[in-house]
Amino acid sequence: MHTTVGIIGGGPSGLLLARLLHQAGIASVVLESRERAYVEQRQRAGILEQSTVDALRACGAGKRLDAEGLVHDGIELRFAGRGHRVDFPGLTGGRRVTVYAQTEVVKDLIALQLAEGGPLHFESEVHTVEGIDGERPVIRYTHEGREQTLTCDYVVGCDGFHGVSRHAVPDGAAITYERVYPYSWLGILADAAPDYDELIYAHSDRGFALASMRSPQVSRLYLQVPNGTDPASWSDERIWDELDHRFARGTPLVRGPVTQKSVLPMRSSVTEPMRFGRLFLAGDAAHIVPPTGAKGLNLAAADVVVLARALAHRHATGSPELLDAYSDTCLRRVWRAEHFSYFMTTTLHTDPDQSPFETRLQLSQLERIASSPHAEAELAENYCGLAL
Amino acid sequence: MHTTVGIIGGGPSGLLLARLLHQAGIASVVLESRERAYVEQRQRAGILEQSTVDALRACGAGKRLDAEGLVHDGIELRFAGRGHRVDFPGLTGGRRVTVYAQTEVVKDLIALQLAEGGPLHFESEVHTVEGIDGERPVIRYTHEGREQTLTCDYVVGCDGFHGVSRHAVPDGAAITYERVYPYSWLGILADAAPDYDELIYAHSDRGFALASMRSPQVSRLYLQVPNGTDPASWSDERIWDELDHRFARGTPLVRGPVTQKSVLPMRSSVTEPMRFGRLFLAGDAAHIVPPTGAKGLNLAAADVVVLARALAHRHATGSPELLDAYSDTCLRRVWRAEHFSYFMTTTLHTDPDQSPFETRLQLSQLERIASSPHAEAELAENYCGLAL
Repeated sequence: MHTTVGIIGGGPSGLLLARLLHQAGIASVVLESRERAYVEQRQRAGILEQSTVDALRACGAGKRLDAEGLVHDGIELRFAGRGHRVDFPGLTGGRRVTVYAQTEVVKDLIALQLAEGGPLHFESEVHTVEGIDGERPVIRYTHEGREQTLTCDYVVGCDGFHGVSRHAVPDGAAITYERVYPYSWLGILADAAPDYDELIYAHSDRGFALASMRSPQVSRLYLQVPNGTDPASWSDERIWDELDHRFARGTPLVRGPVTQKSVLPMRSSVTEPMRFGRLFLAGDAAHIVPPTGAKGLNLAAADVVVLARALAHRHATGSPELLDAYSDTCLRRVWRAEHFSYFMTTTLHTDPDQSPFETRLQLSQLERIASSPHAEAELAENYCGLAL
Repeated sequence: MHTTVGIIGGGPSGLLLARLLHQAGIASVVLESRERAYVEQRQRAGILEQSTVDALRACGAGKRLDAEGLVHDGIELRFAGRGHRVDFPGLTGGRRVTVYAQTEVVKDLIALQLAEGGPLHFESEVHTVEGIDGERPVIRYTHEGREQTLTCDYVVGCDGFHGVSRHAVPDGAAITYERVYPYSWLGILADAAPDYDELIYAHSDRGFALASMRSPQVSRLYLQVPNGTDPASWSDERIWDELDHRFARGTPLVRGPVTQKSVLPMRSSVTEPMRFGRLFLAGDAAHIVPPTGAKGLNLAAADVVVLARALAHRHATGSPELLDAYSDTCLRRVWRAEHFSYFMTTTLHTDPDQSPFETRLQLSQLERIASSPHAEAELAENYCGLAL
């Protein structure tokens, strides 16, 4: 089998890329190792920047997003027992974010791709990527117990940090920059209608907490916990009590049945460059951010928008110029998001080794955001994301 | 002997306080342990915020400052082999800083105080401060070999981090927040006319460097060096070569005889509160910042302006309201400056344990300052200082 672009990974970046290529008249095949139901239920991010919303709309996946997505005009920061709202449109000249879960983005893109796109093969496990320095790289994978071969003009690795694409990078060709954080998030989904309209980011003397939502009926809530925490060690009651303590809002959260409970480790990672011959890395395959800045899904979308444009440019004009610029173009945005995610993470979480001096610096930074228009706008601009 | 305000320490904060009190008609006595020549030659800071300039003018010490001080409209940041100028007035609505060495501030204040102020006793070493919880605290000191006693209504400790005033704080009454940095500055004075008009702050792969000046003929230059560095281990040639390497300007600095060479450790420290009964701490006696943000002298001046106002208010109205607010009023500014100094220090220096990821975050932050008006204005506002 041959295609123009072989896409490894059927998460949001691989699926969005396939849709964008389809619209540009470029053939692609998506190979996803898991089954469809698994992919559609993986809980991940839920905050979309405007440029991500624009890309989804442009590729035809905007209908349910526009109907069900919750447009948010700000977030609340809580610290030192008080709250401060950050007004996004007022600070950024009109930019907003949209709350729409990654699971829903993936469902929409899969349905579209199956209805009208190129091949999307689930349960297709890629083993090796060969020949990325030549003109016809080869992807070898297993589907329904049989070995298969896909030859392509280009291979795009959209298979995440633990995927096979990263292993196809020649030894010594890449540098990986990395940081692992000394805390994790305990995340829950609860059938409880949030009594807050916007996300709440809380700094507290017992660590970070975040209140988000999946819909007007479903709360998504997070607590900073030590690395290695067993989610089963947190009873529902203990979780709700701890959330109320950390948010310190006076009124307790609306409680409801906890339907999912998991622990997420936190990592920053960047692999440079993001292109190796005819292999391109995109999304989590190239970079990881801690979730505090809500940047992971948005960076992945930005990568494939840039890549789809470059492939379309190559297709239309024969010029490799934009493909050659892919890595540098993406990495500028990536490092900005890495810095912002690190900033949000280290400003709001309590490092177990943190000194009282460092805690006071965090509070001074938060106080500054709450009192300086420039400091506040800097947060809002980064949170809402750069234009593509 | 009795006075209204006993001031321990004849550095810039003690001297400025004495002048401000003199103008308010409040008697004071300044006790300085060193001799006059030593005090007048202690090399320290040289960047004055507008509010510091205003305070010096207001107390009659503005004449030589206005004639010889160099008004600076910005600084240059250098990183990744390029330069970016931060335009202070354009970003802050007209604020600037003035380069005028602390040695000169001290000379001006001493001359004024001796000509027309209250007593200023050099070589007067304070041993103890007693009775700060009563109405008549007592300062015991030695002058010309004799034990002396000064009773006061108020005692102000302006004698720095290693001074005796801090030891007069009752056990358990204060909390000290602290951080020691894993690097120092090697500072030189050189008889070389700077060929740059404004300060240059450089991030480099070999550590931080700073180019400043004392006058149009005298350069003041700094290099990040390991803690415990012996200044004698750096030859003049090695210093100039290293400065040129770190600034990476293409053209080398103008060289000249190095007239002074010393190593400065870097520390952040805040003692809370800043008042204990009738003892008030001011300047370095209460807080230390690393010199990267140019905040030490300015915080000291701000403390004594606040304190002089409070004492004058008490004197005029009998109300202790402003004295009671002294600590909280100062600490808001102090923590802002502590955060900014920490930010400038950790963004520009290379920690010996720093990971390549952290170096890339520094560069991303500097790149952001060079490209985002809000990020740049945030630096400019902090550097130029808050209004008093």
